[in-house]
Amino acid sequence: MTWAAIATWKMGALGAKISADILAKGGRASDAAVEGVSAVEDEPQFHSVGYGGRPDRTGHVVLDGGFMDGDTLHYGAVASIEGFRSPVRIARSLAPREANNFLCGKGAELYAEKNGFEKRDNLSEEAREIYEKERDRLKKLSAYDGHDTVCFLTLDESGSMCAAVSTSGLFMKDPGRVGDSPLCGSGYYADSETGAAAATGLGEEIIKGSLSFLAVFYMGHGYSAMEAAQKAVDELDEKLRRRNGKAEAMSLITLAKDGSWGVGTNVDFPFAFVSDTQELTLFLAAKKDGKTVIETI
Amino acid sequence: MTWAAIATWKMGALGAKISADILAKGGRASDAAVEGVSAVEDEPQFHSVGYGGRPDRTGHVVLDGGFMDGDTLHYGAVASIEGFRSPVRIARSLAPREANNFLCGKGAELYAEKNGFEKRDNLSEEAREIYEKERDRLKKLSAYDGHDTVCFLTLDESGSMCAAVSTSGLFMKDPGRVGDSPLCGSGYYADSETGAAAATGLGEEIIKGSLSFLAVFYMGHGYSAMEAAQKAVDELDEKLRRRNGKAEAMSLITLAKDGSWGVGTNVDFPFAFVSDTQELTLFLAAKKDGKTVIETI
Repeated sequence: MTWAAIATWKMGALGAKISADILAKGGRASDAAVEGVSAVEDEPQFHSVGYGGRPDRTGHVVLDGGFMDGDTLHYGAVASIEGFRSPVRIARSLAPREANNFLCGKGAELYAEKNGFEKRDNLSEEAREIYEKERDRLKKLSAYDGHDTVCFLTLDESGSMCAAVSTSGLFMKDPGRVGDSPLCGSGYYADSETGAAAATGLGEEIIKGSLSFLAVFYMGHGYSAMEAAQKAVDELDEKLRRRNGKAEAMSLITLAKDGSWGVGTNVDFPFAFVSDTQELTLFLAAKKDGKTVIETI
Repeated sequence: MTWAAIATWKMGALGAKISADILAKGGRASDAAVEGVSAVEDEPQFHSVGYGGRPDRTGHVVLDGGFMDGDTLHYGAVASIEGFRSPVRIARSLAPREANNFLCGKGAELYAEKNGFEKRDNLSEEAREIYEKERDRLKKLSAYDGHDTVCFLTLDESGSMCAAVSTSGLFMKDPGRVGDSPLCGSGYYADSETGAAAATGLGEEIIKGSLSFLAVFYMGHGYSAMEAAQKAVDELDEKLRRRNGKAEAMSLITLAKDGSWGVGTNVDFPFAFVSDTQELTLFLAAKKDGKTVIETI
């Protein structure tokens, strides 16, 4: 049986090595996804996730995380949580509950504290300096660059699939802003009978098309992982341009239950893939003349 | 040109009268949806929305609201907000923004206060008594009855469609719990080129199928409002029973761009409909021998 992992952005490669180690030894899709994401959360060099993540408008690093178990369709999520090391681990711990699977703000922090999750001030010195330097300039903008969510999709040898995501959200976001990342259906979706998908880009656009759910839906209706990812992104991109004259950045990764993968994007978008038959490889997807072109980098 | 409004639960009838007044005079779908929901928010006799809503586990009435403009696909939402009169009005005010359309917790409260939204302690004396009486008994349960979201879908004479929702969420929910109601795609979705949908029931189940988005997707792919609502609910109900041995309560209302309506449910579910050709009518939908049966009440 095959195993596979796909992760968003160049930073995903760091975690994908860890996912691959777990999956190659017959480990579980859930562990591979969460350990992969968590490794990225711990790296201060990545400025959109966990420690070293971008602050909100008030200078606080406030994090979102999500997790979905494709066997049961159980999900867990936290939004707007501050002062903890790993939103993705907290999100996973919420998934087996019968209800109250998605917690935000102070409620999420109370839960994390009560359940012994590790605390951490995620504002790095570097992030503080960037915030202070950019604060005045960015006050004048309405939407901001810098919304790189780390997303992992994993398939293990038993056929189980998972999705896990983590982000600090938009740089200079308003306090309490919730993007697509903690939203099951928009930011991530996993169904072991079909496939999994996860999104990165401007969450406010991704939500308008329930992009991750839609890509998995398409995989369940005869489309390949590649066709499903591109169809979901291209249709929403076209619809938003037609209605509003523009579409902001959105990128989507997909993984089918047979281990095949796909990507859809309307911007330049690097990602990492590894499987039992493919060594860890970084790719760049880009739109050229309306077509998605994918090259190794 | 036709106009129409559909609303969840018997309590929806109170607001639907107001929606009908607005729409019959050529008013806007957005005003009709928001004023309908807001009238229900103000009624203490309804125990799952606004004033008189059910408290969370700590005795606080903490509210969620969502709004979507089907012309632009812009949405606004608040989750876990305390101390304000009308979550749905706050949600609508967030929709035109380029980003930061969904705010939770303290951030949502800061926004509402800064923008002059009316404050209100939503804990009624009756709700406090129910909470104190039920607290000890309900501590022992994992999922709770009592999750009736008021949802309005509206179509105006110009062809614009909107969705608006408001709820106090699960009775005895954990602090910070986010259900489907504030989630665009799960709790509500509106696209004036196709139709609109909104959900009520156990949010944690509804989210697993992005139910509102899916129903609108089906309406855009040849299914009637009635077929789309039942197909979306029945498929998710079947999938959850097959995977997990059970499916919790979920009900979905739909409205197509031609003013036709639909409902899908796996429990007894009353709702209200009114249009230019149909006086305000209360219906009850129920599952009998696997079929959805709808009667006037």
